[in-house]
Amino acid sequence: MTRYQHLANLLAERIEQGLYRSGERLPSVRTLSQEHGVSISTIQQAYQILENLQLITPQPRSGYFVSQRKAQPPVPAMTRPVQRPVDVTQWDEVMMLLDARADKEMISFGGGSPDINQPSLKPLWREMSRIAQHNPGEMLSYDVLDGRLELREQIARLMLDGGSTVAANEIVITNGCHGALSIALLSVCKPGDIVAVESPSFHGTMQMLRGFDIKAIEIPTDPETGISIEALELALEQWPIKAVILVPNCNNPLGFIMPEARKKQVLALAQRHDIVIVEDDIYGELAAEYPRPRTIHSMDIDGRVILCSSFTKTVAPGLRVGWIVPGRYYDRVMHMKYAAGGFNVPGTQMAVAAFIRDGHYHRHVRRMRQIYQQNMETYTCWVRQYFPAEICVTRPQGSFLLWIELPENVDMVCVSKQLCRLKIQAAAGSLFSASGKYRNCLRINVALPPTDKNREALKKMGEAIVIAMEE
Amino acid sequence: MTRYQHLANLLAERIEQGLYRSGERLPSVRTLSQEHGVSISTIQQAYQILENLQLITPQPRSGYFVSQRKAQPPVPAMTRPVQRPVDVTQWDEVMMLLDARADKEMISFGGGSPDINQPSLKPLWREMSRIAQHNPGEMLSYDVLDGRLELREQIARLMLDGGSTVAANEIVITNGCHGALSIALLSVCKPGDIVAVESPSFHGTMQMLRGFDIKAIEIPTDPETGISIEALELALEQWPIKAVILVPNCNNPLGFIMPEARKKQVLALAQRHDIVIVEDDIYGELAAEYPRPRTIHSMDIDGRVILCSSFTKTVAPGLRVGWIVPGRYYDRVMHMKYAAGGFNVPGTQMAVAAFIRDGHYHRHVRRMRQIYQQNMETYTCWVRQYFPAEICVTRPQGSFLLWIELPENVDMVCVSKQLCRLKIQAAAGSLFSASGKYRNCLRINVALPPTDKNREALKKMGEAIVIAMEE
Repeated sequence: MTRYQHLANLLAERIEQGLYRSGERLPSVRTLSQEHGVSISTIQQAYQILENLQLITPQPRSGYFVSQRKAQPPVPAMTRPVQRPVDVTQWDEVMMLLDARADKEMISFGGGSPDINQPSLKPLWREMSRIAQHNPGEMLSYDVLDGRLELREQIARLMLDGGSTVAANEIVITNGCHGALSIALLSVCKPGDIVAVESPSFHGTMQMLRGFDIKAIEIPTDPETGISIEALELALEQWPIKAVILVPNCNNPLGFIMPEARKKQVLALAQRHDIVIVEDDIYGELAAEYPRPRTIHSMDIDGRVILCSSFTKTVAPGLRVGWIVPGRYYDRVMHMKYAAGGFNVPGTQMAVAAFIRDGHYHRHVRRMRQIYQQNMETYTCWVRQYFPAEICVTRPQGSFLLWIELPENVDMVCVSKQLCRLKIQAAAGSLFSASGKYRNCLRINVALPPTDKNREALKKMGEAIVIAMEE
Repeated sequence: MTRYQHLANLLAERIEQGLYRSGERLPSVRTLSQEHGVSISTIQQAYQILENLQLITPQPRSGYFVSQRKAQPPVPAMTRPVQRPVDVTQWDEVMMLLDARADKEMISFGGGSPDINQPSLKPLWREMSRIAQHNPGEMLSYDVLDGRLELREQIARLMLDGGSTVAANEIVITNGCHGALSIALLSVCKPGDIVAVESPSFHGTMQMLRGFDIKAIEIPTDPETGISIEALELALEQWPIKAVILVPNCNNPLGFIMPEARKKQVLALAQRHDIVIVEDDIYGELAAEYPRPRTIHSMDIDGRVILCSSFTKTVAPGLRVGWIVPGRYYDRVMHMKYAAGGFNVPGTQMAVAAFIRDGHYHRHVRRMRQIYQQNMETYTCWVRQYFPAEICVTRPQGSFLLWIELPENVDMVCVSKQLCRLKIQAAAGSLFSASGKYRNCLRINVALPPTDKNREALKKMGEAIVIAMEE
């Protein structure tokens, strides 16, 4: 982190804590410069960041003042989905979201792409180029079914950070986390089975359930602590549920990290009812807290947790490098990988293995965590500024996804269609529900750099929402 | 083709046609050189090729003589599999075959890899390197669900050669042909369904059936003309068959090209019984005949043929670039691609699109067709020399796979295990049967360059077979 960013964070914290109050004058640039032993321009840059975040306001010839702040919007309440198994719908809406990717002019607040334009990714594509030039034979050959050993070794090391001790030969490389999840579901479920999911939850997983004729039961989920253990238990008593899919670390779309005690509770519940936990850890490495939170997998003692993850969010989606740690389902998963997934591209596996081995991965992820946290603050400010006052907003504990609940009468499916014409893409909340709930919600991708252009787009989104509210 | 190769082919043809008879002396090097207006060394090189193929024998100071030839071994007869729906077995054997890929010292006669060490592939990996350096943004981004447009446009053009006129937006890019086949099956079948397959047929497809709980009914297949229309019709009358999977062009493992009339017959049968044809055209571009044979897809009028193909055999397996043309099942296939397959690597798609666009693809495939045909002749000679006399061998009409039927008492599953210890890999015929038939058969990959080392390995394989025969 640069010195001025550090300083900006420090000052922002003091403002949040109330050490400087609303309307109060901040220390002059010269005073701060002397106090911290840094140059005047460093202080000016720090103040510029705070101004962009609308935490402070400059007044000509008087200095900087703490902005008059609206109150933090509240966090959404625990969700209340229909609690019976249903067939997943919403495919047309998901398809619309995916189609928009082809449009290069679209500002994609609705997508899940990370920021891939950072210089810390340079060593990765240099490595790709090197492999193509110096090792084309390996790059053009068939992969082995469980993926390249040098990569599985690196992943085994990374997984220690989440508390899991696994050997390289317990890991199977997949076509992204998407491939891992689909193999997991095909391995443990049959058509007609019931699977429990957080509500809201990732539309990709739910479309898999639809594809494989599996019913979803949506479980109430708290935006700060995760799936309701009580509701899950009730559902398990009532229905023959086969598995539960969880994103316990930096949840998509709610952003929570499940407290460790709750992770243990959900595992105990799975043991008691003998169900499988499919744990999607794709965002786990992007947690704001350090060291990163533990996975449920790390607490598992009888191999019932199938961990799925990938480098899609931490490094780049175009690699298509994910992995699955199938525990007791290893043999079944290997067969399903052959049947449904097939082999993977060796070249991108080789590149990412070298990227980790040479220390670039940790440097990059550290950087991205900071960038996403700053973006999150900025976008939260903007949302507060441009969206109607009557909203609830999540306070994500990592990653780059923000969930916003609007007044009941706003239909984001309609608003999204209008915004599409302005080349602004939003993801309506209904995508994240099996039965199309949460039409008054939306998910925003804050990995988009907080540029003037994106700010303008968010402002337009706010305006469209205000109009929809008043109709 | 070089001049001496051309000449060698000409002479080989004359010998095959009986213009030069067994034991007869061939024209002297000088005579031929004058006759064809080429240098002495060109003739010597051509004779060297014929000597390697054991078509001619040098005698010191007397010149070259036509070798005493064993009779061509006969082609195997029409297969006679059990004709009722069965659950696919043989996964352990397939897994053994796949596992061997990790062993770099293994000579893989059992695998299906093409030759990726030809200079005509250089422009491909140069392109990969160029993309990594100059277009990392595109390479690292999410793909669109149906794959990159510039590639689909090139594929639409290639497909004209097989007789199919399709638009780029009727094509969906997949993770190799394997991915295409698995999406096709997931799209049109449910667990418990029955699918008809050629017998023998590709083990990958059969393991998909196993994975998705679909039963296979193996249909008698002729090594020269393909699936028995009569037997298929009988099966269709007797069982509620959902689809038939065919590899009509350069069949794996038998090497036949179905005559056009039979392609039409099988399509008419599918129409009459309203079943789907899943056509695997992965080897179609490697047919010996020019122009390449038509696909059944090209004769389809009601969108019931799902064409699956890839660049795995024509260019390189490590690209993982295949495609599916789903006809009337387009929407279902798109959903299944999202559910089961996920997105593909953009980088390899971009590279192969440029490889085709710049003319390198056609040059490379033309070259590989010739190389594989020469290899096929050489390996057929060697097999005749080193294997027991009582064998039947296919006469493939393209591609690089040879199918050998040994005496009934030889168990290639056992022989394969012995050969594995000598670092020689063979694919026992039972891999290609749902119910483990054809244990006395094997498939050989002649894409392996006919080097002394590989010749030696094939000789050892022959010896192991002779020993097994005598036990």
